[in-house]
Amino acid sequence: MPTYRLDIAYDGSPFAGWAAQPGLRTIQGEIESGLEQVGMPAALTVAGRTDTGVHAWGQVASLELPEPPATDLRRALDAVTPHEIAVYAASEAPAGFNARRDARSRTYCYRLLPQRVASPFEAGRALWWPYALDRDALDACAAELLGTHDFTAFTPTQTEHVRFERAILRCEWTEGVGIGPDPILELWIEADAFMRNMVRAIMGTMLEVAAARRSAESLTRLLEGAPRSEGGETAAPHGLYLASVRY
Amino acid sequence: MPTYRLDIAYDGSPFAGWAAQPGLRTIQGEIESGLEQVGMPAALTVAGRTDTGVHAWGQVASLELPEPPATDLRRALDAVTPHEIAVYAASEAPAGFNARRDARSRTYCYRLLPQRVASPFEAGRALWWPYALDRDALDACAAELLGTHDFTAFTPTQTEHVRFERAILRCEWTEGVGIGPDPILELWIEADAFMRNMVRAIMGTMLEVAAARRSAESLTRLLEGAPRSEGGETAAPHGLYLASVRY
Repeated sequence: MPTYRLDIAYDGSPFAGWAAQPGLRTIQGEIESGLEQVGMPAALTVAGRTDTGVHAWGQVASLELPEPPATDLRRALDAVTPHEIAVYAASEAPAGFNARRDARSRTYCYRLLPQRVASPFEAGRALWWPYALDRDALDACAAELLGTHDFTAFTPTQTEHVRFERAILRCEWTEGVGIGPDPILELWIEADAFMRNMVRAIMGTMLEVAAARRSAESLTRLLEGAPRSEGGETAAPHGLYLASVRY
Repeated sequence: MPTYRLDIAYDGSPFAGWAAQPGLRTIQGEIESGLEQVGMPAALTVAGRTDTGVHAWGQVASLELPEPPATDLRRALDAVTPHEIAVYAASEAPAGFNARRDARSRTYCYRLLPQRVASPFEAGRALWWPYALDRDALDACAAELLGTHDFTAFTPTQTEHVRFERAILRCEWTEGVGIGPDPILELWIEADAFMRNMVRAIMGTMLEVAAARRSAESLTRLLEGAPRSEGGETAAPHGLYLASVRY
């Protein structure tokens, strides 16, 4: 069967996450319903199953169709999905391409607005952080995270995961940009794979260190398989974006 | 009486423009109502009276108070205004400071998303432009606009203005940034003063030239005082931002 790859962006605000769930509005649910509407029903496999409220500008999904589409699949699908979802590309992929299994790494970006005034242009787009923020501490945390660690402390205890080691391939803070002159700080983090809530729990923990509410040393211990109860809070989803997937 | 200067940003989407109007939700109306709530009723004078739906990240307003505020005026006002309005600063100004009269120039930025796919992150923030766009033509239009011209063709016929000459001090297209990798084009335009709808009518006209629906030469004629009916369409307000005011 011909295999297709979708490149997707979405504003996660109105959705209960990626994965289809009965009675809830989800991104997978909306796109699969769009595929039905355009006469090409198919099940999606996705690179990163984003949580409720998390955004994406570089999500990748794959699907198999019984035969090549008669129309422009990207255009047809983009037209029937809600405006919070954008279909950037729909292209034929090598036979058997699987967006989840074949992904070598995922990169997320978490956007922070570190100033005393909340910007109207960053509402729902960045985490407003009017509190203390030690940039050196953030950089030190990012350096500490690089490499392979046990991330048990950064995912819910009730979990579907069986293996808690993940390899962090890139982790750094950069100065980002927004609309207008507001300062934006971005955490870029790439790993072979992420567990549920993992980036948000990492962010929550980093912010506790940056606000001097937790020692930098405690992060080292957390990365050795400490229980979830010792990790930091799960930061809000609206600052988080799935940025890209590497194959 | 002590004079104060407010530095303000707002998402213009939910407002019927800057100027207070009975029965309508306006930015001036919301801020003046906020001043009343914090026990410092005052009338605002503003640098740029933005149209319905137009945004600002560098708006300036002035007010006079019978006596210095007992509390932190910025903080108090920011707390009682809606989240679409942000009060960045509230500081004492030289006696007699008038945000409108004393302004030497205003700078606006118009953001354009020139690609075939609408981005969920630019909805309400940039004008989506999936049509032809000749960048050289845009640059030529910008160069043509520099200097002093009669802008009768770029403001409604029914108008409060009595003088139609304005001096364009800066006019250029630059590559901007948005959330994620979408391409953004920005028009930056600075003038001594603007008339009602003027930047939007300039933008609408430029886009007609860039899509080859109007000749570049016709712009020269328009700038010599042609009637409004010969000018281009008024572009949508949601791409426009009051960026800064010079004193």
